[in-house]
Order: sequence, then C-alpha cells, then structure tokens
Amino acid sequence: MAERLKGIFTPNLVPMTQHGEINEAELRRYVDWLIEKGVHGLYPNGSTGEFTRFTPEERRRIVKIIADQTAGRVPILAGAAEANVKETIRACEYYHEVGVRAVAIVAPFYYKLSPASVYAYFKEIGDNTPIDVTLYNIPMFASPIDVPTVQRLSEECEKIVAIKDSSGDLPHMIRMIQAVRPNRPEFSFLTGWDAALMPMLLSGCDGGTNATSGVVPELTRALYDLTTSHQIEKARQLQYDLVKLFDVMLYSAEFPEGFRSAVELRGFKMGCGRQPLSSEQKTDLQTLSKELQCMLSTHGYSDEPIGGCPIDGNSAGNADEVTRIVSTVVAELKRRGMVD
Amino acid sequence: MAERLKGIFTPNLVPMTQHGEINEAELRRYVDWLIEKGVHGLYPNGSTGEFTRFTPEERRRIVKIIADQTAGRVPILAGAAEANVKETIRACEYYHEVGVRAVAIVAPFYYKLSPASVYAYFKEIGDNTPIDVTLYNIPMFASPIDVPTVQRLSEECEKIVAIKDSSGDLPHMIRMIQAVRPNRPEFSFLTGWDAALMPMLLSGCDGGTNATSGVVPELTRALYDLTTSHQIEKARQLQYDLVKLFDVMLYSAEFPEGFRSAVELRGFKMGCGRQPLSSEQKTDLQTLSKELQCMLSTHGYSDEPIGGCPIDGNSAGNADEVTRIVSTVVAELKRRGMVD
Amino acid sequence: MAERLKGIFTPNLVPMTQHGEINEAELRRYVDWLIEKGVHGLYPNGSTGEFTRFTPEERRRIVKIIADQTAGRVPILAGAAEANVKETIRACEYYHEVGVRAVAIVAPFYYKLSPASVYAYFKEIGDNTPIDVTLYNIPMFASPIDVPTVQRLSEECEKIVAIKDSSGDLPHMIRMIQAVRPNRPEFSFLTGWDAALMPMLLSGCDGGTNATSGVVPELTRALYDLTTSHQIEKARQLQYDLVKLFDVMLYSAEFPEGFRSAVELRGFKMGCGRQPLSSEQKTDLQTLSKELQCMLSTHGYSDEPIGGCPIDGNSAGNADEVTRIVSTVVAELKRRGMVD
Amino acid sequence: MAERLKGIFTPNLVPMTQHGEINEAELRRYVDWLIEKGVHGLYPNGSTGEFTRFTPEERRRIVKIIADQTAGRVPILAGAAEANVKETIRACEYYHEVGVRAVAIVAPFYYKLSPASVYAYFKEIGDNTPIDVTLYNIPMFASPIDVPTVQRLSEECEKIVAIKDSSGDLPHMIRMIQAVRPNRPEFSFLTGWDAALMPMLLSGCDGGTNATSGVVPELTRALYDLTTSHQIEKARQLQYDLVKLFDVMLYSAEFPEGFRSAVELRGFKMGCGRQPLSSEQKTDLQTLSKELQCMLSTHGYSDEPIGGCPIDGNSAGNADEVTRIVSTVVAELKRRGMVD
Repeated sequence: MAERLKGIFTPNLVPMTQHGEINEAELRRYVDWLIEKGVHGLYPNGSTGEFTRFTPEERRRIVKIIADQTAGRVPILAGAAEANVKETIRACEYYHEVGVRAVAIVAPFYYKLSPASVYAYFKEIGDNTPIDVTLYNIPMFASPIDVPTVQRLSEECEKIVAIKDSSGDLPHMIRMIQAVRPNRPEFSFLTGWDAALMPMLLSGCDGGTNATSGVVPELTRALYDLTTSHQIEKARQLQYDLVKLFDVMLYSAEFPEGFRSAVELRGFKMGCGRQPLSSEQKTDLQTLSKELQCMLSTHGYSDEPIGGCPIDGNSAGNADEVTRIVSTVVAELKRRGMVD
Repeated sequence: MAERLKGIFTPNLVPMTQHGEINEAELRRYVDWLIEKGVHGLYPNGSTGEFTRFTPEERRRIVKIIADQTAGRVPILAGAAEANVKETIRACEYYHEVGVRAVAIVAPFYYKLSPASVYAYFKEIGDNTPIDVTLYNIPMFASPIDVPTVQRLSEECEKIVAIKDSSGDLPHMIRMIQAVRPNRPEFSFLTGWDAALMPMLLSGCDGGTNATSGVVPELTRALYDLTTSHQIEKARQLQYDLVKLFDVMLYSAEFPEGFRSAVELRGFKMGCGRQPLSSEQKTDLQTLSKELQCMLSTHGYSDEPIGGCPIDGNSAGNADEVTRIVSTVVAELKRRGMVD
Repeated sequence: MAERLKGIFTPNLVPMTQHGEINEAELRRYVDWLIEKGVHGLYPNGSTGEFTRFTPEERRRIVKIIADQTAGRVPILAGAAEANVKETIRACEYYHEVGVRAVAIVAPFYYKLSPASVYAYFKEIGDNTPIDVTLYNIPMFASPIDVPTVQRLSEECEKIVAIKDSSGDLPHMIRMIQAVRPNRPEFSFLTGWDAALMPMLLSGCDGGTNATSGVVPELTRALYDLTTSHQIEKARQLQYDLVKLFDVMLYSAEFPEGFRSAVELRGFKMGCGRQPLSSEQKTDLQTLSKELQCMLSTHGYSDEPIGGCPIDGNSAGNADEVTRIVSTVVAELKRRGMVD
Repeated sequence: MAERLKGIFTPNLVPMTQHGEINEAELRRYVDWLIEKGVHGLYPNGSTGEFTRFTPEERRRIVKIIADQTAGRVPILAGAAEANVKETIRACEYYHEVGVRAVAIVAPFYYKLSPASVYAYFKEIGDNTPIDVTLYNIPMFASPIDVPTVQRLSEECEKIVAIKDSSGDLPHMIRMIQAVRPNRPEFSFLTGWDAALMPMLLSGCDGGTNATSGVVPELTRALYDLTTSHQIEKARQLQYDLVKLFDVMLYSAEFPEGFRSAVELRGFKMGCGRQPLSSEQKTDLQTLSKELQCMLSTHGYSDEPIGGCPIDGNSAGNADEVTRIVSTVVAELKRRGMVD
C-alpha cells in the first residue's frame, strides 16, 4: 500500500515575459526557491497556475520544465485536465513519462454536469490512466464532485488515490473522509482553501494545495508543522495572519493577480498576465502591491515600501485597516456569490 | 468587564400536545433533563425552537416557563425577534424582567436587507435594550450580518455582547473574531453549526448553540470538553459521529422534525408539530425514527428498535448505510442551495 | 364556474404617522385615489404592504379599513399569512366576514420548506378556508411553490383559485399555465413582477399585482390595456418606461422605501416606515426622491423639483443617467443574488 | 450602417462517428437540411455545439466545413472563444478568412471575472478583430456580461455589433436594449433561451440562437414568423409546445444529449458524444428517445415509436405525462441552481 500524499503542495504560478510568454529561466529559479523554502511538493497547472489560459502544448511544457528543474527533490502533482477524456488521458500518459508523482484532474467545467456524468468522466479516466489520479473538486468553478461519487470512484478505481477539495466546506470534508477512509485508508485528502487550513488539518486532512505557499512558503509550512504537532494556540495565530494575507491577495484583484504581485515582492519577475486589465485595475494593483509589501514586511519577508507603512500596520493592530480590508473582501465575496 | 458567554447553549425544542398546544409539564421535565445532562445554558425561541410558528404571546410564555423551571441553575439566552423594532424592544424588556441572561435577535427576515439596514435595525435595538443582546446570523434564513456590521455594532453598542453564527463558514468566523476581539475582548462568538463545532472551537469560538445538544447533550458536552482540553484525536472521532447524527436529523425530514423524533427516543412526548406533514412525510419520519434509534443505541442512549439494527450499524462501519445516508443528505443539501 | 381574477390589483402601501402608527385617514384617501385612477382591485398585506412588520391585530385592521372604504367598488385580495396554519385559517375567516373577494397566502418563509411541506401547508388551508385562496409564490423571500405542487393543489382544492407569482420567470409561468389550465380553466395567473408585465400578459397571464400601480396607476393600467388589446409597439414603449421607474424605486433604496417616496410625490403623507434607516440611507432617499420627481414629471405626474431636472432627463434620452441607474441597479441585483 | 443580425440562427450540433470523431459527411447533410427547413443562419461552436469538448484545430475544422457547405446561402455566426485573447483573435482572423458573417465570443469562463475584467477582455478583442463580434452572455456557465459593460463596449467598439443572451431574463434584456439602442440603433439582440423566445421577440429582440431550431427548425421558424407578425394567440400556443419540447430535451439528459437524440429521430446519425455516459444514463436516454418520438410524431415530424404512444399524448392533453415531465424538469432545474 502506497503512502498517502501529504503536506503542502504549492500550486505554482507561471512567471511570464512582458509579452505574456512563459519565462522559463524565472520559472526554474522560482521552483528552486520554493523547494528551498520547505514546501513538500509542487502543483503546476492548477487554478492558481491559470491552466485554462495556456494552450495544451504550453501546459505540457510547464510541467516538463518544472519536473526537469525539480529533479526528484520533491513530488509533483500535475494538473492534467484537457478538452475531453481522450485528450486528458493523453496528458496523463505524457506526465507519467516525465516522472511526476500524480496528476490532478478537475471535474468538467463550463457545462455543469450531473453526478452521474462526473462519475462516468472520472471512471473512464481512472480505468485508463497509467499514473495516479487526484480528483479536484472546486464547485465555485467546475462541476461539483459529490460525496457518493468520491466514494464510488475510490472503491472502483485503484489509480484514483486522493482528492483535492477547494470548497472550504469543513463538514463536507468530514463527510468525504468518513465515506472513503474505511475502505481506502491510504486515500489522501488535500484542502485547497488556505483560509481554513488549520481546522481542515485538525479535522483529518492530510495536507493542502495552498496558493499562499507560493508567496510565503515559510508561513504556510510553519502553519502545517504547528498544526500537525498540535500547538493549537500558535497555529491559530498563524492561521489568523494567513487569512488576512490570503483575503487581500484573493479579493483585492482579479485572481490570481494579487498572488502574482506578491511573488514579485519576493523577488521574482512575474511579467504580464494573460487576462487583460483595465487601466483602473492596473492602478488598483499598484495600491495592492504597497499594502502587500507592508503585510510581508511585518513578517520580515520584504522591506517596507518607499513612504513607509501605516503605524501599527502589523498583524495584530490597526483596526481601521482591517475594517477597510474586511469591507472590501465582504463586498467581493458577495459579488462572487460565496456569501449571501 | 463581564465574562464572555461560553459553552453549549441548547436551542430548546418545544414539546407539544397532540393538538399542537405547548405541553408545559413536558417542557419543564425536558428542561430539568437537559440541565442534568450537563448543558451550559438554554436557548428558547431559536430556529430549532420554531419561534416563527408561535404567536408573540406563546413566545413569551415559553421563555417564562423555562426561566421559572431553570431557577437560575444555568444562564438562558432567549430569542427575542418580533415583527418590528418596537415590538422586539418590548420583548427584550419582558425577558429582562423574567431574569434571562441575554437575548438573541435574528436579523430581519423575509425581506433581504442591505448591510446598512441591518446595522440600523440592531443599532436601534442596541441603544434601547435593557438586556444584553446576542446578534444572530443565519444567512440561510435571514438577512446576513456581515463582518463590518458586526464590528461597527460591537464598537458602538455596549449592550451587544455576542454573536451566534449559524453559517458554518469557518473563515467567516475567523474574520469576525479578528475584526471584533481587539476592541471588545469580552465579546463572545458562538457557532450554531454542529457539523463544525470542533474546528470552530479550535479556531477561537467560545461555544455553540447546537441542536444536537437537545438530543444527545452528553455527546455534545463531551465534544466541547475534549476539544477545549485539546484532546484532538478523541474530539475528532466524536465530531465525526456527531456529523453523522446531525446530518440524519437535519436532512432526512423537514427541520426540526428529525430532532423532535430523536428527542422522543430519549423519552419525551413531543406531540404534534405545527407544520402539517403529508402522509408520505409521516411514513418517512417513522423510518427515520428507527434509523435514529439504531444510531442512538450504538452510543447507549436508546434500546435497539424492535426488529433490531443492521449488523455493523455502528459509527465506524456499514459503508452501505453510510453511502445511502450521504446520498440523501447531499441531495437535500442541493435542494436547499447549500451546496452547488 | 366563477370568473377568473383578472386585471391589475394594487399591492397597497400603508401610510403611517410620524411615529410609525397606521394613518387611517390617509389610507382611506389613498384607497379612493387608487380606485379613481383605474386599478382593478386592491391587495393589502402583500410584500409591498410590509405585512411582516405589522402585528396580527394591525394586519386585520388594515384590511378592515380598506374593505370599509372600498365599499364594494373593486374586489379586494387580502394577504392572510399568519404564524401557522391555525392562525392563518382564523385570518381567512375574518377576512371572509369583512367581505373581501379572496385571500392571498404566501408559502411559509424563514424555514425553506420542501415541496411536500408546502403542499401539506396549503392543502390544510385549502380544505378549511371559507374564502377563495390565491397561492403566493415569491421564491426570493419564501419557500418556492413548484409547478407540480400548484397543479396538485389546483386539482384537489376547489377553494384555491389562483396563483400570484413574483419570480419574474417567464418559462416558469408558461409551465404553470400548461399544468393547471386544462383541468381548471377558471384558475387565474397573476404576475407580481412589474418589469415583465407586458410579456407575462402576452404569454397568458390574467393580470398583475404590481407595486408600480400604487405609484403610477395610470401607467400600469394603460400598459395592461395596451397589452391586452395587442397594441404591441405602444405597450412595449410603456413597458420600457415602467422598467426604468420600477428599477429606480426597487433598487435605489431598501424595499419598499423607494415606492413610499414616490407615493409621497403623488400627494400622500406616507410618514415614517417601520424599518429604521441609517443617516446615510436617509440622505440617499432624498436624492432618490428628486430623481423620481424628474421621472414622474416627464410623464406629467409631478412638477419638476426645485432646481429642475437634467436636460434630456426624459424617458428616451440621457444615456449617462441611464448608465448610472443601470449600474446601481445591477450592483444591487447582484447583492440580492438575483443575477450572478 | 449595416443591417442588424436578425432571425433564427441554429446552434449546430456536430454529428460524430461511433468513435467520437467529427462525421463530416453527416455534418454537411445536416447543414443542407437546416437551410432547407428555413433557419435564417447557422451558429457553430456554441454551447449546443459543445465547443469546449473539441480541440482548437477541430473547432476551426467544424466552421470550415459548415462555411464550405453553406456556400453563402445563409449567414454564419461562428463561436471563436479560445484559451486567451491572443488565441481568440487568431481564431477571429481565421473565421474572417473563411467568410463567416460574424463571430460570437463567450465571456471568459472557469474563473468568474469581475465586470472590469470582462470589459478589458472584450475591449482588447474588439480593438483587434477583423470581423464583427457578437458578445455571448451565458451567466449559467461563464462570467456574466452586465448591462453597463455591454453599453460601454457598444459605444467604444464599432466591431462589436450584437449580443446573444442566454440568461432567459426578460427584464435584463429590456435593460440592455434601453442602454444600447439609442446610440447604436443597428446593434442586435439575440436570445438563446428557447422557452422565452416569443416574449423576448415581443419585448424587442431581433432573433434567437435556439437549440430547438436544430431539431424542429420548422416549428422555431414558424414561431418567429407568427410572433413578428403579431399573431399573438397562435404564437403563444406554439411557444407553449416549444417549452414542453425544450424542457424534455434540456432537462431529461445531460445537455446536449437530449438534443442529439432528437436530431437522430429527424434522420441524422449523431454518433457517440464526447462526454462519457454511465450505463444508467444510456438507459435513460433510450426512454427519452421514445418520449421525444411521441412528441415529434404529434407534430408530424416523426413516426410513432414501435409500441405506440400514450393515448392523448398530444400537446394539449395527458395531464399525467405533463406532471411527470414537469416534476422531472423542476427537480433538474433545482439541481442546476436555476430555481431556488
């Protein structure tokens, strides 16, 4: 029986040139930095990695570069969803050849499929893949993979070995674990929702694919270590800090631009993203960048911006700033239908 | 500075006669039993207590009976929402007179109000209430109380001392705590979502108003104690059990009929509820009752039903039963728009 | 076989005093004015009439006053929903005694009931009411009444004679008509969504309970007449105007304050509503009032406000104003979850 | 000033072989048949055409075949959305070369973009496309294009000449027409929601891209002609029939399998779709096919199936069948979150 996938898998952003092409040199440098900072694995072609905005050829190239640079130091989970089952299986075969540990496959999107169709889709893949498969449930963006479907697939397909769930719904995670673990004790449960990482781990998750780990891998890793060693008070405080950082990056700009800006502050040239921005959005992004710089500087991950940061702009204080942030976040959460 | 509200407050069901009238004797007996079993407080006129299905006079009578029977043994949190601000303040005055510890007031419902209106509503109440107020956020049923509104009310109204949140949304809870606690360290955060009680407590909540505590007060209390003393593994297993029981009671019948059936199994005559049931629903309820009896019997809270329970029908085993339950639950969750 | 309910039933607002009490004299004057302006019927205790914000006694008093003042000139449809089935049936009996034509009963709200429970609720009422009943479907606020439920109730309960649907969903209306009319040709279908009145009537509806008819009864009545006589081009232009007016009243202030402000402009003292407003909301309401005055003045229903209106501020022109309005409306629609 | 796009554009299904490859011969035969039956235009690579399940090369090939076969007899609207702006513009250039009338571009999907980003995306395309562009709003599947965005794009980009809206939201359509038409009288509004085609046309739409027209082009065309010539009663009856047919095809199987089955009944070999089906789904599809055959036979578009149809199985009668269908449809609508 194989060991469960566990720990923090970083959903890699892709550095680009000023013309929106993949910046291979910078991507290699970023991979090295992430591994050095302690993440347990890498996860290219995820939502954070903007997989839908690349061509099928580019998606293969990204994984190839990362696998080559990683050279076995950490396991790789590669996003392998393509236009249809046949194309997806071909991608599985290719990623198997380049030596990644497993693939992650999001449920079909655009069309909102029924559980029966989601099952049929993954069953066909599970029966024909040469490489281990992680189901990827992100109901905000793609057809949901419900609990009975996860259970049935886990029972019928040995090659399906894990689920990455980005719903952030804790009881849902508990229901999945209860339904699957008795029959498949080595099946792994990963959470993609940074704002609930600590409680998810405490509730039985094995790890996370967390976008913050691409920005502050030290923090995310520390949160994982504190939580799994049951240092509850310290973990909680770190989780609170991470929520604040996560919210700002997630809701203050079109995803994943906030994360891209933050990685720039850690010293990488992220270049020009593929989704055009209005001039107003570009201005907002500069404001956000200063704010992020202040947040990172309080943790020692960045210098203060020129002009300095608000006094008490640290993680514990400054109620006004918090209010403002929360206000923006809540409005944005509403816009996205994530709260009523 | 007053002490925070904390612990498990049971949202009381109301035993009724066969004609749908309040069964005072049985209600008194139920109150005694709950206190004896260790709940930290009582919470009449909540959603579980079907407050909307009683007349204003009946709501007052329910609290009066419970206050009288409790006789100060545990604190009481009384639901006080009425048709408008004036009527609600009158209810606050009445509950103050009968000696309850605080009231809980749900945001206006039916109309879906903006944050500005929700603020104005609670501000008017907070400025005129003689008794401590707990905000009650249940976005599934009533206008949501967003984070900036909670923060502003906590800063402007000393009489507002707590929030009960039934959204089950963990990051939301963290955001609220971050926004309020620095200025109001004695402000209390209670969760109304049993399926996330353990992770909520570990993330900083002070307690819960949990419907399961009206059915298995021993379990809910034990979960609280294990969690707050950081016995993580034991707490997690109990949380898993509670999710299963909670899901069956919540989703297998029209709320709160599943809970009423379960309390019957603990030895109380719950009588006839106020929402009529179709004949098909009545049959379903009998099936549910047997299933609940098996679940309770595995914890020693009930005998097995005549005819016995399925073998392995305990909390760890019987994957088929679990699948079936999960399947039903998921379908129901969808129907209610609680998952996509 | 009775005749179908048809035409425009005005969902009455309730004029109040400065202290929030029912202003009986003004209510009587308003009733006379509405009848004089040509509405086909009156509809007290609807959502526009803020039925949830009155006590049970006040709701009865409002209908009594209106019935008395109407004195049989037009039929009255009275909202009769109370806390539970027993109380609702009592209200039906009372409204029967005071001589209204029929009652309208919204599906249970707060709790979101299953179709089986919605059926059981109305079946119990339908079997025990002395007066004709209109089902009231408003899924935005209350448990939805789905097509099979409407069909079953229409077949089993002779006393259920109509449905008022405020979903604004045209195919849903067509599905209901198809399901019910073959067996109950006298069953009536009324739409509560002003923004789709013309297409609803052309698709087979018998009339509407439209809040705009409480503000500009002349316009709503004219739209009804033009549409039912198939003067399509003229009707369409009037429908366009009505959408603009409806949107401004509905989305620029907390419902129904925009409508209350507009009725003020028609010469009635509406007094102080029961939902408190923040000071910011009060200021917004004054701005809205000026805007409404300009819109009404272009139709000759009001003088221009002091300071005048924007040039081209008529129903055909002023793209900037339209943009701004639309922008506000869309944001608000999103907030209420009515668009994604 | 160019003429508005108007009339019925059929969103082409793609016939496939038993191995899921494009069946070019059958596609050509299908194109001829549609044109012969009177549709005003063709629309390949729409949602009905499953554009997301083909590779970029296949999408180009489909349009090329259709353009070649059509040979200018009717205008073609080609879906041109690709992975990012650059790829989409390349597709626009290609479709321009093969001689289609205009392209239709859906808003970015998977990620749910803000209005600012949706604007920036289409602005970049609108400024660089050599061919006329139709915006495609389908909020159920892709980022919504809101009214102010449509207005702004219509004012800034001459090459953007139309919007296809599949929301089925009538007031939304009216709001768009009001916001755009004063400045761009030649801008065209097409509805993609068959169940509201008649009321949409009466409310000011110029035409539709309706999936039913790929199955019963005679009916959809007749509905268009009756409606635009204001034969209201006849149009309404046909709209009712179309709703019934549309609902069965849309909700009784995973989209667009119901439509593919129905086209088989019109004499085309549709082959094997690209989304795998479970064995249960395959059985359901056979049942659906019989039901569709009965519906089509009542209109003379198909023989009755072997074994015959239920008596009274015509468009006016058989309440039981209707109930059953409606029931299924409503359940499915709920599952998809399209009703509450």
